[in-house]
Amino acid sequence: MSVTAAQGFRAAGVTAGLKASGKPDLALVVNDGPLDAAAAVYTSNRCKAHPVLWSERASADGHLKAVVLNSGGANCFTGPQGFQTTHATAELVGELTGAGAADVVVCSTGLIGVELPRRKVLDGVREAFAGLSTDGGTAAATAIMTTDTVSKQAIASGDGFVVGGMAKGAGMLAPGLATMLVVLTTDAVVEAADLDRALRAATRTTFDRVDSDGCMSTNDTVVLLSSGAGEVRPEPAAFDEVVRTVCADLARMLVGDAEGADHDIAIEVVGAASEAEAVEVARSIARNNLFKAAVFGRDPNWGRVMAAVGTTSARFDPQTLDVSLNGVAVCVDGTPHADPAQVNLEPREVRVRIDLKAGAETATVWTNDLTHAYVHENSAYSS
Amino acid sequence: MSVTAAQGFRAAGVTAGLKASGKPDLALVVNDGPLDAAAAVYTSNRCKAHPVLWSERASADGHLKAVVLNSGGANCFTGPQGFQTTHATAELVGELTGAGAADVVVCSTGLIGVELPRRKVLDGVREAFAGLSTDGGTAAATAIMTTDTVSKQAIASGDGFVVGGMAKGAGMLAPGLATMLVVLTTDAVVEAADLDRALRAATRTTFDRVDSDGCMSTNDTVVLLSSGAGEVRPEPAAFDEVVRTVCADLARMLVGDAEGADHDIAIEVVGAASEAEAVEVARSIARNNLFKAAVFGRDPNWGRVMAAVGTTSARFDPQTLDVSLNGVAVCVDGTPHADPAQVNLEPREVRVRIDLKAGAETATVWTNDLTHAYVHENSAYSS
Repeated sequence: MSVTAAQGFRAAGVTAGLKASGKPDLALVVNDGPLDAAAAVYTSNRCKAHPVLWSERASADGHLKAVVLNSGGANCFTGPQGFQTTHATAELVGELTGAGAADVVVCSTGLIGVELPRRKVLDGVREAFAGLSTDGGTAAATAIMTTDTVSKQAIASGDGFVVGGMAKGAGMLAPGLATMLVVLTTDAVVEAADLDRALRAATRTTFDRVDSDGCMSTNDTVVLLSSGAGEVRPEPAAFDEVVRTVCADLARMLVGDAEGADHDIAIEVVGAASEAEAVEVARSIARNNLFKAAVFGRDPNWGRVMAAVGTTSARFDPQTLDVSLNGVAVCVDGTPHADPAQVNLEPREVRVRIDLKAGAETATVWTNDLTHAYVHENSAYSS
Repeated sequence: MSVTAAQGFRAAGVTAGLKASGKPDLALVVNDGPLDAAAAVYTSNRCKAHPVLWSERASADGHLKAVVLNSGGANCFTGPQGFQTTHATAELVGELTGAGAADVVVCSTGLIGVELPRRKVLDGVREAFAGLSTDGGTAAATAIMTTDTVSKQAIASGDGFVVGGMAKGAGMLAPGLATMLVVLTTDAVVEAADLDRALRAATRTTFDRVDSDGCMSTNDTVVLLSSGAGEVRPEPAAFDEVVRTVCADLARMLVGDAEGADHDIAIEVVGAASEAEAVEVARSIARNNLFKAAVFGRDPNWGRVMAAVGTTSARFDPQTLDVSLNGVAVCVDGTPHADPAQVNLEPREVRVRIDLKAGAETATVWTNDLTHAYVHENSAYSS
């Protein structure tokens, strides 16, 4: 499963001692080739963690040998020491795998502003390297978990090739470009430029449309590696679609396991004048704490949807807006319609649909409700 | 106190039966002159409530006789019926006061998408008119409360003149131009253009810098009325400062009574290249749910401040950012500094200070923490 579903990859997950809980916290994914093509996208947060600053350079040439990931610390705002830890980690992985440090992406996740214990990280890397195996995908997916309650793994197949992936992410979950930590692998024969196209197209409509809590991370990274071990060279469109499927599956799992969430909310905007406006409207609702709290309380308070729509610059006329909640048309042409009491908000999945009546474009953003458990979990995270 | 502190004004607050609780829910403020100069600012939410659409036109000429306000319903997205209720209310107040409907501002607050009972509103207007008095300010301030736990009234004096005001607002509290419902009165002799200048200058740095929950209302209105009854014509600068003082006092009261809040948080950004960038950075932190939940948990998690700063377009270098929490310099030059354990987050008032080191501009935005009580109150508001 996960990153070892495709041929040509080995992985491992170990306990390096970075987490106070003693749970697994370091993962290694190695591409055994014959190809070493790769593409990656990173957070657009301007306060980037050291591993992101390193990895942006490492992945720029479209070639990667390995990805090393740790939970238990974001290595962000940790000063020059922190960057040296990232560098030393890449150096060691490069040395062990026979590649250079410049072919190693480093990913970290956890608390910002706290130094990683470098010796434990490096010892963990040696142990992970020794334990690499072609069925290590689940162990790797488990080792990158932070507040996740389940490991996230997905796999999809095309004609003669496989794309597999793992993800972690449960909070600070509102990507600006990519989100969270995700490693995708494929045995298809695909060069770096094609990987890049497939990955950017997929993330744009999957991870980029998850907005659980409006908070963009400093460490988001999505990497796609191709080993070419399957010896099949797929059509670009077919390959793109399989990559998108895996990304969409992982994105849905992220929303489904978001910190403290009680509902997964799909906000579908139709009738928009442009796709960007559809996304803007959907995101404004996804970030409206009052609406999110109402969903938690099973309260079909569609006025809060309207108040959020009104803060955007999208083209629409308030007098013609339609809103439905789980299929019930509570507002038609800006006027109350069906009785909101008909809306059943008990199921975990909630569907909000807004028709802007300004065009033919559409977009769906996924978010979660705002719950007591979210507040509880995030009021005590670093203590 | 409140809107009747200045000479030349009468007010009343009555129970019209709009609230299920049976509490006072309709207020009337009348300017007895000799002047009827006025200025007003309204929400920049594009989904404006019917009373806002009406009042924008009524106040445009700089003359107002009265302001009528109701809680118990926002009269927003209520269809043509809703607009007719606003119109009928203004007509009746105009008739009773001997002015025209076009000299009456109408303000409504409460749930969106639910019709106001027109007959009850009109009966309430008649009762309020009958009960107008020069010491009715407190009754009026009480009648406009929704989820407010206390009435908000402020007063300040200049050389020979008085400015008084009342405000309501506890949720959906993130002004785009003005916020909530506020009525200010003065007995100074000030023409409409000068009232407008004073009001816009004051709201820009007071109400506009309250961002309790990131949610902009459809009904925000701030009105300033001058009776001229004090016969003193103040210097513009002196008048502006007194208006600003009353607005700042009321704004601080709003934050102090925000729904479910446990802390009032002043986010001070210094060293910004422009005032707009300082506001952008401060607001990004004010809207970061993770940081707000951390403050509730007394967790000095400054990494969440950094992650929020990184989402802005303001000029800064992450490597030189300074952050202090309640005076403790937890981050200096992008590197951990003082032990966060020194930060005491027990007091209700919290001070966050970010130095962008990019210029000399500064701004402070006030927000609240994200608490269990906020989620509780807003998950059951309309049910």
